[in-house]
Amino acid sequence: MSAPLRLGIAGLGTVGIGVVKIIRQHQALLAARTGREVVISAVCARDPDKDRGLSLSNYAWERDPVALALRDDVDVFVELMGGDNGPAKAAVEAALGAGKHVVTANKALLAMHGQALAEQAEATGVLLRYEAAVAGGIPVIKALTEGLAGNDITRVMGVMNGSCNYILTRMESAGLSYEAVFAEADALGYLEADPELDVGGIDAAHKLAILSSIAFGTKVNFDGITLEGIGCISIDDIRAAADMGYRIKLLGVAQKTGRGLEQRMQPCLVPDTSPLAQLEGGTNMVVIEGDSVGQIVLRGPGAGEGPTASAVLSDICDIARGWRGPVFGQPAHSLQDAAPACAGAPAPYYLRMALEDKPGALAKVTKALGEAGVSIDRMRQYGHQDAAAPVLIVTHKTAASALHEALAAMRDTGVLVSTPVALRIESL
Amino acid sequence: MSAPLRLGIAGLGTVGIGVVKIIRQHQALLAARTGREVVISAVCARDPDKDRGLSLSNYAWERDPVALALRDDVDVFVELMGGDNGPAKAAVEAALGAGKHVVTANKALLAMHGQALAEQAEATGVLLRYEAAVAGGIPVIKALTEGLAGNDITRVMGVMNGSCNYILTRMESAGLSYEAVFAEADALGYLEADPELDVGGIDAAHKLAILSSIAFGTKVNFDGITLEGIGCISIDDIRAAADMGYRIKLLGVAQKTGRGLEQRMQPCLVPDTSPLAQLEGGTNMVVIEGDSVGQIVLRGPGAGEGPTASAVLSDICDIARGWRGPVFGQPAHSLQDAAPACAGAPAPYYLRMALEDKPGALAKVTKALGEAGVSIDRMRQYGHQDAAAPVLIVTHKTAASALHEALAAMRDTGVLVSTPVALRIESL
Repeated sequence: MSAPLRLGIAGLGTVGIGVVKIIRQHQALLAARTGREVVISAVCARDPDKDRGLSLSNYAWERDPVALALRDDVDVFVELMGGDNGPAKAAVEAALGAGKHVVTANKALLAMHGQALAEQAEATGVLLRYEAAVAGGIPVIKALTEGLAGNDITRVMGVMNGSCNYILTRMESAGLSYEAVFAEADALGYLEADPELDVGGIDAAHKLAILSSIAFGTKVNFDGITLEGIGCISIDDIRAAADMGYRIKLLGVAQKTGRGLEQRMQPCLVPDTSPLAQLEGGTNMVVIEGDSVGQIVLRGPGAGEGPTASAVLSDICDIARGWRGPVFGQPAHSLQDAAPACAGAPAPYYLRMALEDKPGALAKVTKALGEAGVSIDRMRQYGHQDAAAPVLIVTHKTAASALHEALAAMRDTGVLVSTPVALRIESL
Repeated sequence: MSAPLRLGIAGLGTVGIGVVKIIRQHQALLAARTGREVVISAVCARDPDKDRGLSLSNYAWERDPVALALRDDVDVFVELMGGDNGPAKAAVEAALGAGKHVVTANKALLAMHGQALAEQAEATGVLLRYEAAVAGGIPVIKALTEGLAGNDITRVMGVMNGSCNYILTRMESAGLSYEAVFAEADALGYLEADPELDVGGIDAAHKLAILSSIAFGTKVNFDGITLEGIGCISIDDIRAAADMGYRIKLLGVAQKTGRGLEQRMQPCLVPDTSPLAQLEGGTNMVVIEGDSVGQIVLRGPGAGEGPTASAVLSDICDIARGWRGPVFGQPAHSLQDAAPACAGAPAPYYLRMALEDKPGALAKVTKALGEAGVSIDRMRQYGHQDAAAPVLIVTHKTAASALHEALAAMRDTGVLVSTPVALRIESL
């Protein structure tokens, strides 16, 4: 048996403690599977005295994650602190610089600094691995980078933020407003300290940026993502979508088009029979399409102690077994800059609007759509008490540019009581 | 860049040609991803002159797969011939003996001889890889062996034979008999030369035996599988199951119990809302449950040129990148013998029977069930023209032993017109 693999774990929150537990409980199993003992040399956390439910006195403690990364008795620096700057970045850079392998669950760090960190890791000849950064316990980084390495990947899509999915499914099942469910989720501790990371779609977009890079051989480009959060979704939209046979999901899509790399993270309607529609609560789903394999769908828990720690252990076991490979599936210096293609392929859209209840109002709106070349697939006007008539329209496939032209013309008619909601309809 | 990785491909059927195509079309992509050129040195097939739709004259030809395996210009022997004995086995043994890595799609070979081949590969220090042997394009071997390596796996289940799933879904959608759809599938070339491999559940059981070994650290034990094919399923069962809210699937389940390793491959009822129920045609699904990760579900195409070749390429790319690891997730000599536990956990059962249309018949049957301790959840008797009354029963959870006792007692009542159909009900 080879020498033990010695870990330094920075960050002892939910995931960090989950990793410690697995390493303790499955010592023999991990040794059998990797051919080495996996041991923890030292740990680091903000508050050493906090009760974490288990004794950590067997490990050396460091106050400074950089000092932890540089310890002689650490082969792998496990970064579970989070944050795209500050201590996490400094410590990961220090570890890579000192020739240590790094395992991280930090999607923000990779989405913002992945290219530079990958170049540093590959120049030093060490590994930087991050299975836990995307879709929790689902081994999606491995599936994409290794399992589908023989494919030209054509599209990656998925629901990758459990908190948003919880909010949307809870709104539907309980008939509650966005604001009410947001407050509920916050009270339950489901949201990040800065909830905009969740509901603004930023966390999910970090994940999409990472998957895109591997899938398409391009440099991670978070800024190239068309990003909309779920704050604009009202209970009226949830109900109207359901009435038309759809559910609303915060959906990420990345694909190469003739115009460049399209990356979108936005609330979309999906048919209620689609596997994406059936995702409840914190479950994630990633769909990968390749030229040879066709379509692969991966589903599993997107967050939580056990699932995320399971993904961290996958990376640790690979390192223990001697796995070698580039950070984003091919050498970082060979990754291309991808021109962002914002528009997206033509798609049907869902439009919800409130019209002044006057003769000719609907005619004006439909004329604006028609003149922009947007044709209507289905339309419903609902009964109403007040002066505004609720109208739903599902369009045929239309280019985003035509839709925006139509929306501008609709505003100019003066019959809209408020800004219409326009959501893309995606099918799997 | 390292020296090219040189392949010898034995077997140029659908999958072999698919592998050749990917290697030709994606030369640059594969080199970028693995850091080496992947080249084909030589090939071998029964009929060198057959038109395979592409020119193979650039490669050396061997008539004998063993000779191919032993060539000096072959680093990896790619076995795509199939069959658990004969040339495939001889050539794989020769390759391993000569210190060549082996990639195979041959589930029968691994299910019958996996332990000996793994021991040989590990003694020689070469790799034996088989992503394509289970569930086609789904990277399930990788997910289980590497992606979930930090988990104590508690259960593996799945639908892993596309031909059976085609037959069952087609019977339901077209309302046709088993015999009619079997003939149709055979004419379409969906069935193995020996169709019993498919409809008898043998092919799917080969796959389950392989997954079990990795999941539970046990020696591959095909003979320990409780095996039933789909030949007993009539259109009446399909309809009756649908009427009760179920669909019938050929489902494999492997789990460790207090009594040993339970491995079953048999037609089961699953709730029609379950993801397993919604699998159509040749799509496969594998569900893996681990102590940390919870439940992971993988879905994708289970067969065909592109998907299977994609899986073969995954192994080839891993070898090119320098992947190292044991064949079944831990060293072959450390795999345990597992006592087969046949009974299975208690489950509800579906019973379909035809009773003599006489007063007291139903009372006799229900008495037999009650005396064996089997309690009834739901029962339906259907209207009928002939002398036999069709009766369906769904039981509460019951031990298999109690059910078999009840079935024997029911036979002794003399009111059964034919042998009842009894199928386990599984929920995901």
